[in-house]
Amino acid sequence: MIDHTHAADLQSWVTSANGHAAFPIQNLPLGIFSPPGGAPRAGVAIGDYILDIKSIIDILPTGLQAALNQTRLNSFFALPTALRRELRKVMSASLSDLAFQKVVEPALHPMDTCELHLPATIGDYTDFYVGIHHATHVGQLFRPDNPLLPNYKYVPIGYHGRASSIRPSGVPVVRPVGQTKGPQDSEPRFGPTRRLDYELELGLWIGEGNALGEPIPIGQAADHIAGFCLLNDWSARDFQAWEYVPLGPFLAKNFHSTISPWVITPEALAPFRTAQPARDAADPKPLPYLWDDGDQAGGALALDLSVTLSTTRMRDQGLPDFALSHGPSSNMYWTPAQIVAHHASNGCNLQPGDLLGTGTISGPDRSAYGSLLEISRGGAEPITLPSGEQRTFLEDGDEVVLTATAQREGFASIGFGECRARILPAKG
Amino acid sequence: MIDHTHAADLQSWVTSANGHAAFPIQNLPLGIFSPPGGAPRAGVAIGDYILDIKSIIDILPTGLQAALNQTRLNSFFALPTALRRELRKVMSASLSDLAFQKVVEPALHPMDTCELHLPATIGDYTDFYVGIHHATHVGQLFRPDNPLLPNYKYVPIGYHGRASSIRPSGVPVVRPVGQTKGPQDSEPRFGPTRRLDYELELGLWIGEGNALGEPIPIGQAADHIAGFCLLNDWSARDFQAWEYVPLGPFLAKNFHSTISPWVITPEALAPFRTAQPARDAADPKPLPYLWDDGDQAGGALALDLSVTLSTTRMRDQGLPDFALSHGPSSNMYWTPAQIVAHHASNGCNLQPGDLLGTGTISGPDRSAYGSLLEISRGGAEPITLPSGEQRTFLEDGDEVVLTATAQREGFASIGFGECRARILPAKG
Repeated sequence: MIDHTHAADLQSWVTSANGHAAFPIQNLPLGIFSPPGGAPRAGVAIGDYILDIKSIIDILPTGLQAALNQTRLNSFFALPTALRRELRKVMSASLSDLAFQKVVEPALHPMDTCELHLPATIGDYTDFYVGIHHATHVGQLFRPDNPLLPNYKYVPIGYHGRASSIRPSGVPVVRPVGQTKGPQDSEPRFGPTRRLDYELELGLWIGEGNALGEPIPIGQAADHIAGFCLLNDWSARDFQAWEYVPLGPFLAKNFHSTISPWVITPEALAPFRTAQPARDAADPKPLPYLWDDGDQAGGALALDLSVTLSTTRMRDQGLPDFALSHGPSSNMYWTPAQIVAHHASNGCNLQPGDLLGTGTISGPDRSAYGSLLEISRGGAEPITLPSGEQRTFLEDGDEVVLTATAQREGFASIGFGECRARILPAKG
Repeated sequence: MIDHTHAADLQSWVTSANGHAAFPIQNLPLGIFSPPGGAPRAGVAIGDYILDIKSIIDILPTGLQAALNQTRLNSFFALPTALRRELRKVMSASLSDLAFQKVVEPALHPMDTCELHLPATIGDYTDFYVGIHHATHVGQLFRPDNPLLPNYKYVPIGYHGRASSIRPSGVPVVRPVGQTKGPQDSEPRFGPTRRLDYELELGLWIGEGNALGEPIPIGQAADHIAGFCLLNDWSARDFQAWEYVPLGPFLAKNFHSTISPWVITPEALAPFRTAQPARDAADPKPLPYLWDDGDQAGGALALDLSVTLSTTRMRDQGLPDFALSHGPSSNMYWTPAQIVAHHASNGCNLQPGDLLGTGTISGPDRSAYGSLLEISRGGAEPITLPSGEQRTFLEDGDEVVLTATAQREGFASIGFGECRARILPAKG
């Protein structure tokens, strides 16, 4: 999987790509965009530009042409992995070899003039809970002596989320209203959430699906992932506390979720695979349907994840975004392949374009906490921002940005692009 | 809403419709079907026949033609309520007035020669928990002294389910495999479920949607429901017990759900509306966003719900299906309008073709329990079938049929059609 397309010295004739923080020629993520005045279409990010695939569809292998001449990537995701991989080779050659420049250059649009859309129609969205430190911290708020439940190290815990309210980076989030009931209250009240939070997650795009009743073996699970993105699972903690027993979070989570619009392919991430961190000696070995030696040896992702915050006052004062957290993606107790294999283990059919969230990825200490619930210890310890403002949870006008980068000695770094959104006041 | 189309003496020139148990001319449910050798299309059930709407599209109001000339009903569901209602008037006239017989009769297909499909592409599926007796019975198994949680009478509890694995009546259910851990077990095991159950529910089809961030007021919520169906939320109780804390049911439920394929319209059900049962004096009044006097006075449904079971041996012996339960739909603590208004109250956008389940509808006593979990008291009390077999949960070859009928003095009874499926052995 690590081939010439990853060579650190590979350069593009799109000069802004060379040394680009997110989109050098070694990345080549896919998305759906509209150029100014144009309809949605498939594109590839290269430096500060988007390559309009529709305009150069003739130079693609014929097996890819119909799947990419669409307004969503679902048909492309549905292709066999080997065919999907062809696109990277063609794009890498087209954007590095000067012989292609004359044909391809007219298909480039400056990214800052384009609108980015959801890359696929999301049939079903599932959110997992594999960030073990997050699960531990949240558990500690409710059960100080017994934070992790007995099933956690056997079952990749997940639950179904809402697909319709997922939006790409940049779409503002309206503060939701809902029921809350504090420990002192005799009756619940209905109004805007007072504990609006973000959650730092990775998203997995499902590629080829499985038929209903046909599980995906763990050894094949990675091939069913068409790509990755960032995911902000906005959460109203006060709604969540009141509603979530016994069937799990519902209105606390389904009012809006934000994803980064670029699909970072497994091929682009091949150099940044790593071993799943060793379990503690006391931890149980996963059941066989979740265990694959190859997956354990190289199925985890080595990414740096960051969250920043800006407030209206900070932006007015010209202050830079404030770094809320920074940590590695290795804080996942289960690999992406384990997540997929578990989801399909009962025969549940996954479909191309389904989105699977990892759950909040937090590190063990405060510098890498992936939510304000953890950073503020359930709202008890406010943080102070450079503007002098304090925050326990998000206020109107606050903007949260998630980023992910992959770095490794001897390879060009790549990034996921931003997952950004600002909070608007509640309606009415 | 109660007009000439409901007249008990209204007859159809499709003679099998007159006195038909489910599909007299007073019903006129919509579905998607394939006639022999044909592609999927919209149809209306009338007696023992399906009327192919595509074949008579010219006689429909122009505003309905494009929406009904499709392979799914989503576009029809998306129409304003007033326009949707036009279809009933035209169908009622076309199938009763002899002047239309010559034109319409060639568009009839014997129902037993047709294949019925899902009526819509289900964007999101949400399951609620409004059957208060079911919630009480299940709660009693875990918390004998405190079966109902404190939020139950304030919050219409719901959670997101899996849309991709919903299948129409008749598609067999493969027994799922998964993790279980009994109280005696030191480690979980992985294998076929030993506690496979059904759940008797109603389904609500969402009609017109709402924009993200724009709640649906309770007074308008009923107009966002395009129809109703039966829903069997198959459940693996052993998986559920092990996996569901803290984020709710997941693999225990998402392997397969069965719905009856006919969309019973709100217009057809107009005579069978009733007042929401009076709450106990000690029960709290719902918060204002869930309260509408008109909805309380006439927003509940008066349906008779039944569940029957047959086993392989019973069928081999020619024994009739065994009646497992029979009860009214009035055992719902929240009305359909309250379910919709709650779901959208935080701004979550509902979309045409979304499916909302009520949750299991059980009566207070054993004759009307809506699941084997309740009937067998968690597996402790087997039932004996006419074949001499015993059941606590479902065995391979068992077939469960849900039915619903609406009856009222002075009106023709209508039915929902069957929600039927048989259990196949686990794979592998």
